[in-house]
Amino acid sequence: MTIRPTTSARSVDEHREHVEQLLRPLALRDVAEVSMTEVLGRVLARDVRSPLDLPVFRNSGMDGYAVRAESVAVTPVTLPLAGVVAAGQTGQTPLPPGAAMKVMTGAPIPPGADCVVPVEDTRVDGSEVIVEKGRRTGDFVREAGTDARAGDLLVPAGTLVAPRHVAALAAVGLARLPVFRRVRAAVLTTGDELVSAGASLRPGQIYNSNGIALASALAVNGVEVVSVEHSRDDAGEFQNKLGRATEVADVVFTSGGVSKGDFEVVKDVLSTRGGDFGTVAVQPGGPQGVTVVDGVPVLSFPGNPVSTVVSFEVFARPVLRELSGLPPVPKCEVPLLDSARSPAGRRQYLRGRMEIDGVALASGPGSHLVATMAQADVLIDVPEEVTELAAGSLVTVWEL
Amino acid sequence: MTIRPTTSARSVDEHREHVEQLLRPLALRDVAEVSMTEVLGRVLARDVRSPLDLPVFRNSGMDGYAVRAESVAVTPVTLPLAGVVAAGQTGQTPLPPGAAMKVMTGAPIPPGADCVVPVEDTRVDGSEVIVEKGRRTGDFVREAGTDARAGDLLVPAGTLVAPRHVAALAAVGLARLPVFRRVRAAVLTTGDELVSAGASLRPGQIYNSNGIALASALAVNGVEVVSVEHSRDDAGEFQNKLGRATEVADVVFTSGGVSKGDFEVVKDVLSTRGGDFGTVAVQPGGPQGVTVVDGVPVLSFPGNPVSTVVSFEVFARPVLRELSGLPPVPKCEVPLLDSARSPAGRRQYLRGRMEIDGVALASGPGSHLVATMAQADVLIDVPEEVTELAAGSLVTVWEL
Repeated sequence: MTIRPTTSARSVDEHREHVEQLLRPLALRDVAEVSMTEVLGRVLARDVRSPLDLPVFRNSGMDGYAVRAESVAVTPVTLPLAGVVAAGQTGQTPLPPGAAMKVMTGAPIPPGADCVVPVEDTRVDGSEVIVEKGRRTGDFVREAGTDARAGDLLVPAGTLVAPRHVAALAAVGLARLPVFRRVRAAVLTTGDELVSAGASLRPGQIYNSNGIALASALAVNGVEVVSVEHSRDDAGEFQNKLGRATEVADVVFTSGGVSKGDFEVVKDVLSTRGGDFGTVAVQPGGPQGVTVVDGVPVLSFPGNPVSTVVSFEVFARPVLRELSGLPPVPKCEVPLLDSARSPAGRRQYLRGRMEIDGVALASGPGSHLVATMAQADVLIDVPEEVTELAAGSLVTVWEL
Repeated sequence: MTIRPTTSARSVDEHREHVEQLLRPLALRDVAEVSMTEVLGRVLARDVRSPLDLPVFRNSGMDGYAVRAESVAVTPVTLPLAGVVAAGQTGQTPLPPGAAMKVMTGAPIPPGADCVVPVEDTRVDGSEVIVEKGRRTGDFVREAGTDARAGDLLVPAGTLVAPRHVAALAAVGLARLPVFRRVRAAVLTTGDELVSAGASLRPGQIYNSNGIALASALAVNGVEVVSVEHSRDDAGEFQNKLGRATEVADVVFTSGGVSKGDFEVVKDVLSTRGGDFGTVAVQPGGPQGVTVVDGVPVLSFPGNPVSTVVSFEVFARPVLRELSGLPPVPKCEVPLLDSARSPAGRRQYLRGRMEIDGVALASGPGSHLVATMAQADVLIDVPEEVTELAAGSLVTVWEL
């Protein structure tokens, strides 16, 4: 698959499908065993079945008195008190016929009892208990295995583990769970003009925001970020750092060096390694590259900060969420509150801010407007053929 | 404020408001400085303003040729090539009148130039460039300060930092950011019958799921869990462990020991320390306690696994999300696909599973049904006065 030249640029959907084909095999990845304290937010690699019946034993649903229902068929009735079963006790002493035994919530029902009278419906008088209100067989008795049977499917493979799953997995005593290893990503930014936060800028320099922005976007989409590096526009340095990235990661993201300038280090190096560089009919984020280096997919995004973020959102985020077991990015149709223009033949992703009655433009279209992007909470998807949008037009938006 | 006895139990809303009054002051908490790599998912404690203009300097929006617009007013035109400015170069050499200088995207515009002709609209012939298409003053020039001015509000206090904020904060070179310290919670489960996962069960024992379930629920709601401990039903042990919990945490959650049995360690100990124990008109989760120990709020939930989780959902989660800067729990009204009964005078939270056309019951009402709770993704809120719900009734649900 080759990206066609500008004059006939690849569409957004074509390029995204190409990226997805390349990344989807990462789903066939290793299974790791993790402890219960690490399982939250991970994806189960196998069906987990209950190793035991739950409840494990027949127990009381109330603080009260275990009796035979026939003993309390007519009330009030006075029964001899034959003992107390607290939660945690073995509860193997049988209930004498016609007697009552005090039981706490969760305590074993003594053999011979078939219901529990709640403590609210009783009075104690010395060694006797006066039952004011009868109960039927089974009342407030939790039978063993009524929540789950040994062998029942508890949580299926592919589940993104939430607190409610943790509760169930812990309740059956599981200590270690099989989960998919997270997708591991490396980020490699390029550009002689970029310096690290905290340093002071010399003329012509700007701060590198792409490294941390991509790392953050990867992290919130379930990906483990294993390295964030920067390379100057130097083929040797870039090749070295790329080599290290492909050693530790399942997928590498580069930013910068893919356009039409004289010093396009990413395009220059990766074109000699089978890289597929060209233009996608999109704004921002037109120049895109895809290469497989030593079996590792390398996605090359343009370096303008907004282009980098939008490229990630449009081409990589949907498939990464799928691989991470996360739900798809929410999309909806809402009225556009402003009017907007869009270039012919290019799908445009405008930054928008959701209001009660629709979506407002949060920023101009420039791909350098990274500060104003902070005010946006959605991307507005403007189709290729649309060049003008009147205020009130319905547009598709998705959450950033 | 005192919880009234069972006969006139406190309502869910009254109890939740009581809990919220107690927890809301935790918002007035410490501010910590964190580095850019730690700021994702934290809440900014102060407005962050841009320390500089962005773009920092006037730069090119395209790979192309910096010219004066008047030089390309009539095209095609051939201009002498006076040099190249790469991104990262200082770009202080002025453009000679009537000449062109090659500029890369992001590179400084040389003094004297007022527009950029994209490389696509040019041809090079030795030391000259032939411009095929004219441009107007300002075309593809990004003026300094058009994204943000020094002093502009970049991200307001109270913002939960997402990747788009990280991009903006990094782009202006900030290295450390002021964030609120997370709320710190301790979990203390009780019960002689509980044993840890991985151990084997003796008669009368069950696995402790409440500790890890509460810790997980706290973590996904933005709270830092600083300790998870278990105490037997022993007043001395409980008091010791509670003392350690209140030393390290802003809020403590206990489970178990709050009901009407003979061995209610939590209620017995905390009632002597000003604790407010009683019944809320809710199922599951009726017995509830609230105490302030050495200035630290202690919320005491009942010990049935479903009661513990539902108590957290109903009484603690809304205010904790607010304190963590997270959006409110999504609620909606949907048709109930099954029929259901509910006790008179008690608000019931049933576990439900969302289907395309409504919500189905995911479990019976029993507060011990922790395995089946794993199949639920919402709570169904049944008002106090409702005792029967026909299939098709509209019910309020919220996401677990």
